[in-house]
Parts: sequence; structure tokens; C-alpha cells
Amino acid sequence: MEKTLAINSGSSSLKWQLYEMPEEKVIAKGIFERIGLERSMSTVKFDGEAHTREIDIIDHRQAVLLLMDELIHFHLIKEFREITGVGHRVVAGGERFKESVLVTQTVLEEIKAISNLAPLHNPANAAGIEAFLKLLPDAVSVAVFDTAFHTTMPQAAYRYPIPNKYYNEFSVRKYGAHGTSHMYVSREAAQYFDKPLESLKLITAHIGNGASISAIDGGKSIDTSMGFTPLGGVMMGTRSGEMDPSVIPFLIENDPELKTAQDVIDLFNHQSGIKGVSEVSSDMRDLEIARDQGDKNAILAYEMFVDRLKKYIAQYFGVLNGADGLIFTAGIGENDRKVREDVVNGLSWFGMEILPERNVRGVVGEISTPTSRVKVLVIPTDEEVIIARDVEKFKKKTAFL
Amino acid sequence: MEKTLAINSGSSSLKWQLYEMPEEKVIAKGIFERIGLERSMSTVKFDGEAHTREIDIIDHRQAVLLLMDELIHFHLIKEFREITGVGHRVVAGGERFKESVLVTQTVLEEIKAISNLAPLHNPANAAGIEAFLKLLPDAVSVAVFDTAFHTTMPQAAYRYPIPNKYYNEFSVRKYGAHGTSHMYVSREAAQYFDKPLESLKLITAHIGNGASISAIDGGKSIDTSMGFTPLGGVMMGTRSGEMDPSVIPFLIENDPELKTAQDVIDLFNHQSGIKGVSEVSSDMRDLEIARDQGDKNAILAYEMFVDRLKKYIAQYFGVLNGADGLIFTAGIGENDRKVREDVVNGLSWFGMEILPERNVRGVVGEISTPTSRVKVLVIPTDEEVIIARDVEKFKKKTAFL
Repeated sequence: MEKTLAINSGSSSLKWQLYEMPEEKVIAKGIFERIGLERSMSTVKFDGEAHTREIDIIDHRQAVLLLMDELIHFHLIKEFREITGVGHRVVAGGERFKESVLVTQTVLEEIKAISNLAPLHNPANAAGIEAFLKLLPDAVSVAVFDTAFHTTMPQAAYRYPIPNKYYNEFSVRKYGAHGTSHMYVSREAAQYFDKPLESLKLITAHIGNGASISAIDGGKSIDTSMGFTPLGGVMMGTRSGEMDPSVIPFLIENDPELKTAQDVIDLFNHQSGIKGVSEVSSDMRDLEIARDQGDKNAILAYEMFVDRLKKYIAQYFGVLNGADGLIFTAGIGENDRKVREDVVNGLSWFGMEILPERNVRGVVGEISTPTSRVKVLVIPTDEEVIIARDVEKFKKKTAFL
Repeated sequence: MEKTLAINSGSSSLKWQLYEMPEEKVIAKGIFERIGLERSMSTVKFDGEAHTREIDIIDHRQAVLLLMDELIHFHLIKEFREITGVGHRVVAGGERFKESVLVTQTVLEEIKAISNLAPLHNPANAAGIEAFLKLLPDAVSVAVFDTAFHTTMPQAAYRYPIPNKYYNEFSVRKYGAHGTSHMYVSREAAQYFDKPLESLKLITAHIGNGASISAIDGGKSIDTSMGFTPLGGVMMGTRSGEMDPSVIPFLIENDPELKTAQDVIDLFNHQSGIKGVSEVSSDMRDLEIARDQGDKNAILAYEMFVDRLKKYIAQYFGVLNGADGLIFTAGIGENDRKVREDVVNGLSWFGMEILPERNVRGVVGEISTPTSRVKVLVIPTDEEVIIARDVEKFKKKTAFL
């Protein structure tokens, strides 16, 4: 039985999913949290049960060792070599990586070299890759880039209107993110429509704690809301999204706590968005409770959130010059009935009409009326299966070598 | 004969227009340029002729003295007291000024106090006002704010998704600009449609060297692209418009010439936009010549410019949930046939269709086909006449005192 691990390393976490391939059967999944911090912990889920324990985890290398130990402990594998493939989500692929690649030492160095494009994520991704290379030297190791799907954007969309030298010398441009998710749900949508992907214009709304909207023409990303980093685009749980950049020096001048542009960007990344305006929480579920109690800041935060989503979706109707479908996915997109309703009703002129009895929690598939000119779908995202599939492709390729 | 002056002071310029009111007849107009710099000059236009002379001008106070001297010299007035009203464009009115006001000493101090919202413009505006108060103490003096028209925006549109204290303590929010122009062309459009303004949803595109797009619902601005300052929104002649704010600390870290966030904002204001990408010029006419010669940077700059215009127009179709008309105005909007064509054709799905034989240079009025669901109009802007009209209103009010 061939087993494949899909790995998603964050700055202080490591999420994993163990697959039986090519059946795409999930054997187990889990997460290591608070790596390098106090009270770090491991969770393993399989057969409908979760096993959690607190354990000191110093770094990603140790987390990988502990993961292999958990797999043996819970009889999920008998020996390491059962795992014949490991796929790693890498947040920033820069201009170098336009598709998934087999990891070599050179590739690993290149991933580290573009860490400035995702300073919180790429070093963690590289640490995860390195640990597995040492532990499972014979497994096929594949890097899957969150930016790869967006490398088809035309230059007019990805370039910023600033002097060219910043693109030519420093690669400052829009890269986008959540590419694996936008790709997955657009392909699922084509299956749902039973039409060739090449014939469809789709707007995909990946709305979770981080959120991005994409314009997908014939299966290719032609624009996306996240920018040089994941701060760009719509308002998010703790992130501001895009705004007039003049605010930055004004805040530095007026708030003694903000000394540098980086201080302001940290504020925009971690203390802004729904959290900053609601003063309640970055979580839509907490926000809903506060709104129901009439909390004015929570109501404003919600209105702003919907306003920014509507603006980017409308914008991509413009970029695509019309669309066949709008797809909601990720935590909020899959589960928040009211956000979907308010976004779609607010754009009824675009030919979208929601069917209230379909727009319920847990729905999968179409939530628009049969006469809705633009179809509205909810499709649960699955970034891990894309990673596992890419590993599978490389297993086949390397088998011929 | 009652005469009224409409004054528009920039950081190093003072534009003026002399009206016979209430007939709204333009008697003469002119500009003082390079105030406080070398080779400053004055231009006076009347009866189809322009009179230009080089003359040292130290400050706005001196420019005002020279203006009165020119008016006497060219027999446009016989004595100062013929001028019974002076209206001043003021760029930033902050949250304080929601409409035009009669200038008092208190008002003047308040205009100076909110200079941080328009550091290049408000001090110059205040200097012009002060000079006229001294020279024409009996004339009715009125301040007309560029931001006033946008004070009807709902909170969800004008607030930024950052912690509330920056709004509560420092008034950081979207103010917009070009308000007088957006107001003027929306009212003219209602006359053109022969429908009550209250019944119309309009998108107004003021596209000059500075550019902003507005969503106008029933005569009221409900959103606009410029932000805390005129740097926000679409790409412009030398300005970047909005982008992922993370770019700012990255540029400071990587370009030794950029030491502070303010250095980057200066770059985004003066060296970016069409100028920064084309490396040719900030002027669309120069850009057209370069594009015709196949200059790749000029072609890219043009494509990006049209892309950003389309995105904001589409966005405001979303904010308004549909629109009756799209209005082009200002230098590029009134004169650049190709920009209008590429924007409208790129958004044909929205129910707009251009009539090529109407879309010519110098056209005024409708440029869409009779069957176009959304009407497209070209309406030359006239900010000065709005200023003169507001002065006239206050003349009538003060006459009753």
C-alpha cells in the first residue's frame, strides 16, 4: 500500500494529511501547533476520533520526527518506508516556480532565497521539506506552490504602477495566494456544470480567515486579489487588505507606538480587518453573536467585510467581462449563509439570484435559482488532495527514470 | 455689473476665472504659474486672446495683488469693488465641512488646521483666501470643498479596516476628491437624461492627470476611488493609486534611496503611474505617440491604466447594484477617444455599447448606441461655475442679513 503525506507548514504549525494513493483515501490527519512556543501540542485524527497531547516541540524538524512517531504509535504505518511520497505546500514560488516541482537541493535553496516574498511562511516550508528529506530520503518529495496557479496572469494585472526598476531588479509584483484552492474549486465547478473548463468564466471566492478572490478564464487565473504578499485585496479576519498607501506615513507621524513602515504593516496584518473594526474578534462566528446583541462596531465590521467582497467580485465581473459562475469556498465561504446571501443579493443586477432553501449550512453545489443567469455554487476546498495528486504524478514520472 | 472670481490655488499656482453673475458669463480667466519658483509667469485670456508675461511672484499674496493689477490693466474691471464675490476651491474639508461655507476667521483657521489631509494644497488654498480677505474686505468670500460632495458616503465605504482609534482620534478615513466635478457632471447628466437626479444611478469618471471614479445614487456620492488623500484609487499620470501596502517596507529595505515611508509615498505620488511604467511621460498624448512607435513600456502603461479604470467602474456597478449611465469627464475623459472605447468595450457584458461615429474628439453628450442598456456620456466638467454659483447663493443669503 502506497502512502503519501501532504504537508502544510506554517510559521509555528505543521498540518499533515496521510493518503492512500491513488485511491485518494484519507487515512489520518493532524496538526502540530505552537511549534517553538510554550504549550505546544499535537493532534491526530483517524477513524472519527481525535487524539491530542501537549508536548514540547522546539522546531519543525522535531515536529516531523514526532509525526513519524505518532504514525507508528497509532499503527497508521508499520515502518517509515511505507511513505513513498511527501508533498509540501510552499506559499511563495515567486517568478521562478510556475508549477509543482520535484525537490532537489537546488530547489530547496531557491525556496529559501525567495523568503522575502513570504517571510513568515517560506522558511517554515523549507524547514519541513528539509526534515523529510533527511528522514525519508527515498520518498518522492514535491513542492506545490500557492502562487503557481496565478502565474498565468497577464502583465497588466500583475504589475504595479510604480517605476519599472522595482519589478526588474526586486521582482515587486502581484503574486496572489491560495492558488491550489482556486484551482481545485474551479475544476470541481467545471465538473458540476458538466462543461469543459476551457469554456467557462468563473469567479472563485476563497473566504476564510485569510481571503482572496480570483478571476478564472478558461481554467486560467487572470487576476486575483492578494498582491505582493497575502495582505493585498479584500478585508480579512485580522488583515486590512488594500488601501491608500498615504495612510502609512501619517500613522507613523501620529502614533508614537508605530515607528517604522514595518510596524504599520504588522498592525495591518495582525490587528486590523474584522478584529480591528469589531474590537470583538477576528472570527465571524463571534462577530455574529455580537451583531445579534446590537454591537455597533461588530455591525460596521460586517458591513465593511461584505462591501469589500462585493467590490472585488464586481471588479472581476469586469476583468472577465462577464462570468458563468461565482464559487464560494473555505471556512466562511463554505459555512456562512448570511455572507453569501448578502454578497449575492447586493449584486442582483449582475444576474445572480440566491435560492434561500438551498443556501443553508453544510450545502454543497448550487445555491442560486434555476433562472439565475450567473450560477452561484458552494464547493468545499481541498488543497491537500491537490498536493497528494501532484506527488502521484511525480511518482509516475520518476518510475520511468 | 456684479462680478465674481472663482479661485483655485495649487501649491505653486493660482488659477482664476472672472464671471459676470448671475448670467454665468466668463469675462476672463488666467493662471499664475511657478509661484515662489524661478521663471514664474502670468497668463490672462479674454476675447479669444492669451496674454502671457514672465514676472517674479514670491507667494500667493503677491499673485492676488498681481491678479487685481491685471484686471485693471486689461480693463476687465475699473475698480476693485466691482468684484463682489470670491469663491475658493479648498481641497480638503475633512469631516468638518460638509458643504460650502462663508469664510470667517474661524473657518480660515479650521482650513489651516486640517492641512495634514492635503499638505500640498490646503496651505495654498488658505493663503489665497487670506490675501483676498485683505484686498477685498467687502466681497462675499466662500470656501468650496473638494471633499464636501463625498460626505454622503456611508460609513462602511469611508472607513478603513484598521483599528478604530485611527478614525476616532486621527480622522483617518476615505475623503475622496474632485467632488465639485463629480457633482457638476452628475447634475448635467440628469438634465441630459431629462429625469430627476433622485431616480438615477450614475458612475462618474473624472479622468485627468489626477483621476477618480465615483458611484452616485440619487445625486449623492456613495463611494469614490480616492482615499485619505488623492493617492488612493486608480492609476494616474504620476500616481500609483491603491496597492498592497506591504510593498512599502520592502522598498525601504531594498532601495537605499528610500529611507522612510514618506520617501516611498513621494515616489508613489510623483514618479509612478503612467510616468513610472512608460518611462516616457505622464501625459497620455506623449504616451500615444510612443505606443504608435511600438514602445513596450508605453503599451504596458496604457494597458494597466485601462485595466484599473475598468476595475473601479465595474466595482461601482457593484456598489450601486447597477447603473443608468457612465459619465466621462476631465482632460482624458473628455478628449481621449481610445481610452473611452477600450474601457466601454472591455465592459460590454455590463450592457454598454459604444457608437464609434459619436465617440470622437470634442464630442459632448451620448456616445453609446441607442440600444445600449447603460448610457455612456461625455460631459465637460466645470468646477469654476459651481464655485461661482455657490458664491451667488451666499450673496443672496447675506443680502437679507
